[in-house]
Amino acid sequence: MSLLTSNSHSMSEEEIDEYSDGTVKLRNPNIELMDQDILYHLALGSESHDLNEMFGDVKFVCMGGTPKRMENFAHFIMNEIGYKLPAGTMLQDISAYSYRYSMYKVGPVLCVSHGMGTPSVSILMHEMIKLMYHAKCQDPVFIRIGTCGGIGVEGGTVIITEDALDGQLRNSHEFTILGETIHRPAKLDKKLARELKALASPDDPYDTIIGKTLCTNDFYEGQGRLDGAFCDFSESDKMAYLEKLSANGVVNIEMESTIFAALTYHAGIKAAVVCVALLNRLNGDQVNAPKEVMNEWQARPQILVARYIRKVLAQKGQLKGIFGAQGSIKSPRRFKLVQQESQAHE
Amino acid sequence: MSLLTSNSHSMSEEEIDEYSDGTVKLRNPNIELMDQDILYHLALGSESHDLNEMFGDVKFVCMGGTPKRMENFAHFIMNEIGYKLPAGTMLQDISAYSYRYSMYKVGPVLCVSHGMGTPSVSILMHEMIKLMYHAKCQDPVFIRIGTCGGIGVEGGTVIITEDALDGQLRNSHEFTILGETIHRPAKLDKKLARELKALASPDDPYDTIIGKTLCTNDFYEGQGRLDGAFCDFSESDKMAYLEKLSANGVVNIEMESTIFAALTYHAGIKAAVVCVALLNRLNGDQVNAPKEVMNEWQARPQILVARYIRKVLAQKGQLKGIFGAQGSIKSPRRFKLVQQESQAHE
Repeated sequence: MSLLTSNSHSMSEEEIDEYSDGTVKLRNPNIELMDQDILYHLALGSESHDLNEMFGDVKFVCMGGTPKRMENFAHFIMNEIGYKLPAGTMLQDISAYSYRYSMYKVGPVLCVSHGMGTPSVSILMHEMIKLMYHAKCQDPVFIRIGTCGGIGVEGGTVIITEDALDGQLRNSHEFTILGETIHRPAKLDKKLARELKALASPDDPYDTIIGKTLCTNDFYEGQGRLDGAFCDFSESDKMAYLEKLSANGVVNIEMESTIFAALTYHAGIKAAVVCVALLNRLNGDQVNAPKEVMNEWQARPQILVARYIRKVLAQKGQLKGIFGAQGSIKSPRRFKLVQQESQAHE
Repeated sequence: MSLLTSNSHSMSEEEIDEYSDGTVKLRNPNIELMDQDILYHLALGSESHDLNEMFGDVKFVCMGGTPKRMENFAHFIMNEIGYKLPAGTMLQDISAYSYRYSMYKVGPVLCVSHGMGTPSVSILMHEMIKLMYHAKCQDPVFIRIGTCGGIGVEGGTVIITEDALDGQLRNSHEFTILGETIHRPAKLDKKLARELKALASPDDPYDTIIGKTLCTNDFYEGQGRLDGAFCDFSESDKMAYLEKLSANGVVNIEMESTIFAALTYHAGIKAAVVCVALLNRLNGDQVNAPKEVMNEWQARPQILVARYIRKVLAQKGQLKGIFGAQGSIKSPRRFKLVQQESQAHE
């Protein structure tokens, strides 16, 4: 099985540079030999659909846990980049008939739900990377827009992941392939993280920080919560654990970042993770902020990512629409308007 | 951290017998001390809802991956047990506002979607077990109704899990709690598995078998598929791996069974996993059976579970409705009718 380890390194910058046309290359020689490639969990296929025509213009792939959040983001980003649907049309969930993930396309922005936990993200990432390949997308950027528990940061804080760590605080994701355990680096693009951080505005009524993110396979025992169906540890055990995380630079805990980082890095795709903290775990375990507050918090990573997308499109002279090409969104007010409109659809 | 290991054994039959009233006990002393318990991912709470009134009569908790499958099952089981909704009412997704899981209640049967992969199931199981506790449900039985890849069995075969194995073929699930790795047995109720098997009819135009189930954290590389975004192994490596699984008694692969078995066993809840194979992995990797065929296949585990629920209710004299109390469903025809009705709602 030495072929596994010998080939399992991630691409160096030199290797990535070789792909001068910017399209996503697959590290799997089998795909191009197949008559058709069914992306089963997306309800798409390389023969049943013209994937290049449908998705060839995608530049940003934004992912988040729930279908609802990604539908909201699709409506929001449509407004932010001034994208207009043809008269008499509305957004449609492209993957509706997979009954698994939801996908909305707004010009160059693809908004996809990934469910909860690394295995669910893993399935989606394999199929999204293959979709980028079939569609011949150029230099797509992948951004996860999530929620998390903060460690020592207040609810509502926006956190950009510097490094994704697994349960043993390793900066990698563990894979079991043909019964063999391997690790792949869970690296994110540090320059992209800094670019995103720079788009935080001093006028934002909340903090936007960069830090390490712990990725767990469970929400209760796995994150040291005292309020699961089972709990064999004490409050002081829990606090000692959270303090240890904090001493290691961990500022938040979620359940998807290592696989998202490991698979994008392995594919040579630039990626970032931006989450909002729903609580400060040093103060408690239950997620109990009022619904309106939580909705406003969940908009914050979306606002930051929208600023980034506007900036990139403006630099390319591709920002159309009513707001001009300033490349920066000062006020979160428009978000609320779009969210309300979107909720009116429910 | 010795408290972790010392307390982490599962309940013996003697211990379970101590709970003579049959209600679900939590192995967490913290919950009863809390003012309220918010079941965040179900959009329910112990103070905001009267959980005993809403769920106290639940006897069967049926889970499956997608919201759609569980909605279909809810309509199907309603017909099968002769359960009638009050005039002018329809089934409603109880957890709709969680935007994460879907939950439908049909008298004593709760139908819940669990998403894909063990972490997603883990979150749900903690909250479902707590729900059973708050609702004071008596002796609930948990059954996962899933899809899988078969090994040496044809697409459409129904497989009842005897033992759930992890990627290293261990009959346990690995947990990381406060940074420490522990294993809990992934045991299912063998008597329940035999009861389910006995409900397969010689008239069924497909096989129903019992065997070991491999649970993986990925659908592509993790299951030895050649058609993911990445593949560092050859077809002969893959076949050697699948043959090794087969030699170990593994008849199918899915992504949820170890956590489902480990957490129900740890809670002293009787549980089973019934899946239908969507393909024979010895013949290929892609899931490409026609949609109509796949829909009919996905009905098969539901038919078996419905026979079981009817049998139990009939034994208790609780089977109402138009079909009488034979406790056995001979024909899958009624399923199709209900499915069609349900699809007409889409």
